[in-house]
Amino acid sequence: MSILFAASGFTASDWRPKIEAFAGGRAVAVHGEDDYDTAAIRYALVWKPPSGLLASLPKLEVVFNLGAGVDALAADPTLPDCPLVRAVEPDMTMRMTEWIVLQVLTHHRQALAYLDQQRSREWRDLDQPPASAVRVGMMGMGTLGSDAADVLRRLGFQVAGWSRTPKTVDGVEMFSGDAGLDRFLRRTDILVVLLPLTDATRGILNMNLFEKLARNGALPGPILINAGRGGLQVEADILKALSTGALEAASLDVFETEPLSEVHPFWSHPRVIVTPHVAAVSDPTAICRNILGQIDAYERGEPLQNVVDLKVGY
Amino acid sequence: MSILFAASGFTASDWRPKIEAFAGGRAVAVHGEDDYDTAAIRYALVWKPPSGLLASLPKLEVVFNLGAGVDALAADPTLPDCPLVRAVEPDMTMRMTEWIVLQVLTHHRQALAYLDQQRSREWRDLDQPPASAVRVGMMGMGTLGSDAADVLRRLGFQVAGWSRTPKTVDGVEMFSGDAGLDRFLRRTDILVVLLPLTDATRGILNMNLFEKLARNGALPGPILINAGRGGLQVEADILKALSTGALEAASLDVFETEPLSEVHPFWSHPRVIVTPHVAAVSDPTAICRNILGQIDAYERGEPLQNVVDLKVGY
Ligand SMILES: NC(=O)c1ccc[n+]([C@@H]2O[C@H](COP(=O)([O-])OP(=O)(O)OC[C@H]3O[C@@H](n4cnc5c(N)ncnc54)[C@H](OP(=O)(O)O)[C@@H]3O)[C@@H](O)[C@H]2O)c1
Ligand SMILES: NC(=O)c1ccc[n+]([C@@H]2O[C@H](COP(=O)([O-])OP(=O)(O)OC[C@H]3O[C@@H](n4cnc5c(N)ncnc54)[C@H](OP(=O)(O)O)[C@@H]3O)[C@@H](O)[C@H]2O)c1
Repeated sequence: MSILFAASGFTASDWRPKIEAFAGGRAVAVHGEDDYDTAAIRYALVWKPPSGLLASLPKLEVVFNLGAGVDALAADPTLPDCPLVRAVEPDMTMRMTEWIVLQVLTHHRQALAYLDQQRSREWRDLDQPPASAVRVGMMGMGTLGSDAADVLRRLGFQVAGWSRTPKTVDGVEMFSGDAGLDRFLRRTDILVVLLPLTDATRGILNMNLFEKLARNGALPGPILINAGRGGLQVEADILKALSTGALEAASLDVFETEPLSEVHPFWSHPRVIVTPHVAAVSDPTAICRNILGQIDAYERGEPLQNVVDLKVGY
Repeated sequence: MSILFAASGFTASDWRPKIEAFAGGRAVAVHGEDDYDTAAIRYALVWKPPSGLLASLPKLEVVFNLGAGVDALAADPTLPDCPLVRAVEPDMTMRMTEWIVLQVLTHHRQALAYLDQQRSREWRDLDQPPASAVRVGMMGMGTLGSDAADVLRRLGFQVAGWSRTPKTVDGVEMFSGDAGLDRFLRRTDILVVLLPLTDATRGILNMNLFEKLARNGALPGPILINAGRGGLQVEADILKALSTGALEAASLDVFETEPLSEVHPFWSHPRVIVTPHVAAVSDPTAICRNILGQIDAYERGEPLQNVVDLKVGY
C-alpha cells in the first residue's frame, strides 16, 4: 500500500521527508521523480496534478488536496469518483485570520496615508472612526471566514456574514443565499471575501455587486479584501469601481491570472494592496501531520473529515 | 456648582457641547474663553492645564484628566491635593488595541517588504513563521496592555506580560518588578510598551534593555513597539540598536519631543514606522459621557473610579 505525492509548484524535497515522518512506514512515491506501480497507490496527496493522473490509479481510495481550495481539481473532468478531502488545518486558519485582520486594520487605521505622511515628515492626525462605527461583511463563513469574523468582532467591528446555507453565529448578523445577498451588501463598509471558487461564485465580485455596498458609512467609501480566489473577481470591474468611487480601496491576495502580470494596473494603483497569494500558505509539517493522521483514522474505520461535496463544488 | 474645562491643544468648541450634553444643567466654563468665579468650580476637566491654575480653585473637589497618561500633570508641583481621575474608556482601549495589533501584524507579516515588492512589481513569497513561533512581550499590563495582550493571544502569539506588582492573567506568562524584567526580555521577540511615564520608567527603553531581547527567535531580530510615552525611550539608543541589530525594526507613536522634529532620523529610517501620537485619541463624546457619569455617581456618594496613586505616579 502506498502514497503518491503529485503537487505542481511545490518543492518535493521539502515535502517528502515530512510525509515520510508521519507515514508510519507506508511507502511514499513522488510523481515525476520516482518509479511506482500505479496499482499500489491507495492515497494521493495533490495540488493541481496533471489531468488524467488520478484516473490512472486503479486502487486509489482517497485524494487529499494540499490546499483548502479544490476549484482546480473539481474542474478536472478526469477526477475519479472517490472521496476528495481538502486541507483544513488550524495553522492555516490562524495565518489567514492574521492576513485578514492586518488588511482590515491597514484600511481602517489609514496606515498607507500615515506612511505617506511619514515620507513627507508630516505630523498630522487624521479623523479616525472607532471600529464600532464600521461594518465588516464576511462573504464565506466557513472554516476561514468564521475565524476571521470572530477576531474582527472582538476588535469591536460590526460583523455580518454571508453563506450559502442559513446558519447562526454568535455576535455576527448572518445572511444567506441569493435572497440575503443584497441586504448583506447594503450594510457593508468593508467586504472581506473568503468564498470558494465554484460555478455559483465565479465572477461574483463585479460592478453590480460593488455598487450595492454601503456608501454612507464612517469610511470614505467601500473597501474590498479578497483572499478567496482570483476567479471570484472581475478585475476590470475592480479598476472601474476604484475610479468611480464604488470602491475606495482594495487588498488582494489572489488574481484572475497568477503570478499577476508585470503590466497589471494593480501593482501601481495607489489604493490597491497586492500580496502574492501568501495569505495562508500551507505549512508542510502541519498539513502532513494532519493528512497522515487522517489516513491512520480512515484505516481504523473512522470517517474522513472535510470531504468535498463535488455537487456544490467545495 | 460648576465645571471648568482647561485643555491645551484641544479644540474647546468640539468639547463644550459634549460636556454640556451630559452636564445635567451644571454650568460649564472654558478656561481662556469664559469669565468664571474660581470659587464656584468643583470639577476640572483638564489636559496639561497652565501650571498653578488648579491651585487657584479653592473649592476644587476632583480633577479629571482627559487622557489615560497623567505624567504631565503629576510632574506639576502646584497640583492640588484632591483626587485625580484618569480617563479609562472602552472606546480608547479598543483604539489602542487596534493600533498595537496593526503594528504587530505589520512586522510579523512583513507588510513593508511586500509593499516594496509591490512597488517593483515583484511576485515572490517571503518565509513566514506562524504566530505560534513568535513571542510577544507586553510591558505594562494595565487597562490597555491587558486588552491588547488578550487579542494577540487569540491570534496565536506566545504572549508574556510585565507589570510592577505580581498578577495572574489567563494564557499570559506574567513577570513583575525589577526581579522579573531580565527573564521577560530574554524570551521576547516583539516588545510592546504600554507603560505609564513615571520616575521608575523614564528612559527604560535604552540600549541596555534592547540588548537583552531574544536574538534566536523566528524573526530576523527584536522589534520595539511603543505607544506609552516618548519619555520612556532613549531615541539615540533606538537608532544605535537599529544599526547594531539589537533592534530589527520599530513602530513608534510617541516621542521624546512632540511633534517629532522635521530633521529627526526616524522619519526616513526604512525600518521605523512613525505615527503622530494617534494610537488612541480620546473621543470627546465617549470621554465626556464617562466623566459626567462619574460626577453624577460621586454626588450620589459612590466612590470615584481610576483614581491615580500619585506616590507611584500612575
Ligand atoms: N489566499 C490564500 O492563501 C488561501 C488559503 C486558503 C484558502 N483560500 C481560499 O479560501 C476559501 C474558503 O476556505 P474555507 O476553508 O473557509 O472553506 P469552507 O469551510 O468550505 O467555507 C466556504 C464558505 O463559503 C460559503 N459559500 C460557498 N458557496 C457559496 C455560495 N454560492 N453562496 C454563498 N456562500 C457560499 C459556504 O457556505 P456554507 O457555510 O453554507 O457552506 C461557507 O460558509 C477556499 O475555498 C480557498 O479558495 C485561500
Ligand atoms: N499613544 C496614545 O495614544 C496613548 C493613549 C492612551 C494612553 N497612553 C499611554 O498608555 C499608558 C498606559 O495606560 P493604561 O490605561 O494601560 O495604564 P494602567 O492601567 O495604569 O496600567 C499601567 C501598567 O504599567 C505597569 N507599570 C507601571 N509602572 C511600572 C513599573 N515601574 N514597572 C513595571 N510595570 C509598571 C502597571 O503595573 P501594575 O499592574 O502592577 O500596576 C500596569 O500594568 C498611559 O499611562 C499613557 O501614557 C498612550
